[in-house]
Amino acid sequence: MEHILLSHGSGGRNSQKLLKFIYDCLGSIVINHTEDSGIVTLQTDKLAITTDSYVVEPIFFPGGDIGKLAVCGTLNDLAMVGAIPKYITLSFIIEENFPFADLRKILHSIKKETENAEIEIIAGDTKIVSKGKMDKMFINTTGYGIVEHSLEINSKNAQPGDAIIVSGDIGDHGAAIMAYRNDFQSDLISDCASVVLLIRKLLDESICIHTLRDPTRGGLASILNEIVIASSVDIELNETEIPIKDAVNGICDVLGIDPLYMACEGRAVIICPEEEVNKILRILKKTNEGKNVCKIGSVIDKCSNPRLYLKTFIGSRRILPLLSREQTPRIC
Amino acid sequence: MEHILLSHGSGGRNSQKLLKFIYDCLGSIVINHTEDSGIVTLQTDKLAITTDSYVVEPIFFPGGDIGKLAVCGTLNDLAMVGAIPKYITLSFIIEENFPFADLRKILHSIKKETENAEIEIIAGDTKIVSKGKMDKMFINTTGYGIVEHSLEINSKNAQPGDAIIVSGDIGDHGAAIMAYRNDFQSDLISDCASVVLLIRKLLDESICIHTLRDPTRGGLASILNEIVIASSVDIELNETEIPIKDAVNGICDVLGIDPLYMACEGRAVIICPEEEVNKILRILKKTNEGKNVCKIGSVIDKCSNPRLYLKTFIGSRRILPLLSREQTPRIC
Repeated sequence: MEHILLSHGSGGRNSQKLLKFIYDCLGSIVINHTEDSGIVTLQTDKLAITTDSYVVEPIFFPGGDIGKLAVCGTLNDLAMVGAIPKYITLSFIIEENFPFADLRKILHSIKKETENAEIEIIAGDTKIVSKGKMDKMFINTTGYGIVEHSLEINSKNAQPGDAIIVSGDIGDHGAAIMAYRNDFQSDLISDCASVVLLIRKLLDESICIHTLRDPTRGGLASILNEIVIASSVDIELNETEIPIKDAVNGICDVLGIDPLYMACEGRAVIICPEEEVNKILRILKKTNEGKNVCKIGSVIDKCSNPRLYLKTFIGSRRILPLLSREQTPRIC
Repeated sequence: MEHILLSHGSGGRNSQKLLKFIYDCLGSIVINHTEDSGIVTLQTDKLAITTDSYVVEPIFFPGGDIGKLAVCGTLNDLAMVGAIPKYITLSFIIEENFPFADLRKILHSIKKETENAEIEIIAGDTKIVSKGKMDKMFINTTGYGIVEHSLEINSKNAQPGDAIIVSGDIGDHGAAIMAYRNDFQSDLISDCASVVLLIRKLLDESICIHTLRDPTRGGLASILNEIVIASSVDIELNETEIPIKDAVNGICDVLGIDPLYMACEGRAVIICPEEEVNKILRILKKTNEGKNVCKIGSVIDKCSNPRLYLKTFIGSRRILPLLSREQTPRIC
């Protein structure tokens, strides 16, 4: 059988075959095969929980696929509260006639990222939808991590004087996908990756962190807009410091999209006291995923009408608003 | 604004508006508004985790909607390991142009079931997909419950001599949806409901339970087939004892579908030592959801080639196999 049939979602014999296919591809990372709920024994009483559905189009893109994205995206959401990921759930919605060969590739990506992160799959689900009633494959992953630190890491905790750091070049994921969709010639690949180890290294060195966010949908400018509102602070970014690849700038120019609003899928924005900056740069520059880390701005002051500002190349200052229009649909 | 736009999934201003709409409808059951991961403090070290995506068509059906189904389905999966539900995550995939009025109705169903179960929403996500690239709305829910009992409740634990009990009439959900899709005149409604309280009552009275399953996709015969294989036992059902409404039998007759394979969404199958049967019947008959509880069969013996048998009305015995074809797509 080369393609998925509606009967693979029936609860009958073909459902069993599809499950066996999935388990065979995933191997020992699946720790619950037979029950609807998995049971785990936890070493902590403080648990972080996150959920995301992935509808990225195309499902295979330069630098990754929907499986890698689903695991890394969920791991990154756990990392953003400083949690150590332990388990994920994995739920597929698949269009009838989807090729088993593509499912295998996606499962192998999931297996690889799951093994890298030393986590296990504790529960799963698969639904099949008639051809034409959805687009190929959607994946939901949820993640569970334990919280061992005692920091208050959240979007409300950005404080005047804090530095804004980004762990690497921004906009790669969004630009790579848009280039691919528009048949542009480009070697750019998505930054899709887990930032768990980066954050782990900072926490292990007792770095004080106030806020962590991964700039996914809506990019750097959108998540910083959320932070200025949540923390009631002004933030100023320094355009000369923001690391953007020439290829990303080029693609964004052609499409008329500001790269500051382009999604990343393997970057972390770290907001911390200024005195932690040098330590963070030193630690992250030694890593592969964080080698382009840099400070890109500061939290200015408390404010009742908070704004995100950009100090531009020419020294002027402009507001970076929350956008109203959709620039990059189905980017994740 | 009356319909959902692509920009409601952009991460920008309209995403914020959609989130506010969702939070306003759900109210205080949402305990994490601002972060990608919610953090909870647990009173236990033994945690049950489950996930399900819901693609039911139609999204509003007699007796419920996709929101009620998503919450109850996930609660029921937790109940099937005897866990006490504490938190759910809620992830929407919504087609562009979906009416806000329908979203409100679905959110109100979710709020009602979540409040009834005394659980909270710990994380969420919303993705918007272009019109024509999916069918209206899919929902993923995951559930987290704590396990306080010390029973071994699982599909491998059905033992010779055990009784098979079902908590109410079977096939209502599947038959109600199929009748609605086919424009049959029928007063039948889905049994969509939480069985958490039923199971809770049994555990509170220290009933010994070996296996619990909710007969959803594939119905009673499919989940019992999974159990005979997992436990390596033969099971015999007694056709005269299986509670099926005349309306369900009628709809199944017209469609050529065996009601034993029709999905339920508010029933539990309980497998337990024979000596527990009378206690279970006494406890559940007092409840609204369990008033039609009855014993429908027995686990016969250990077997290397296990089968599910039906002792028919006329006294003959036939095998109920796992089916290969899809009878009722998108039933949940």
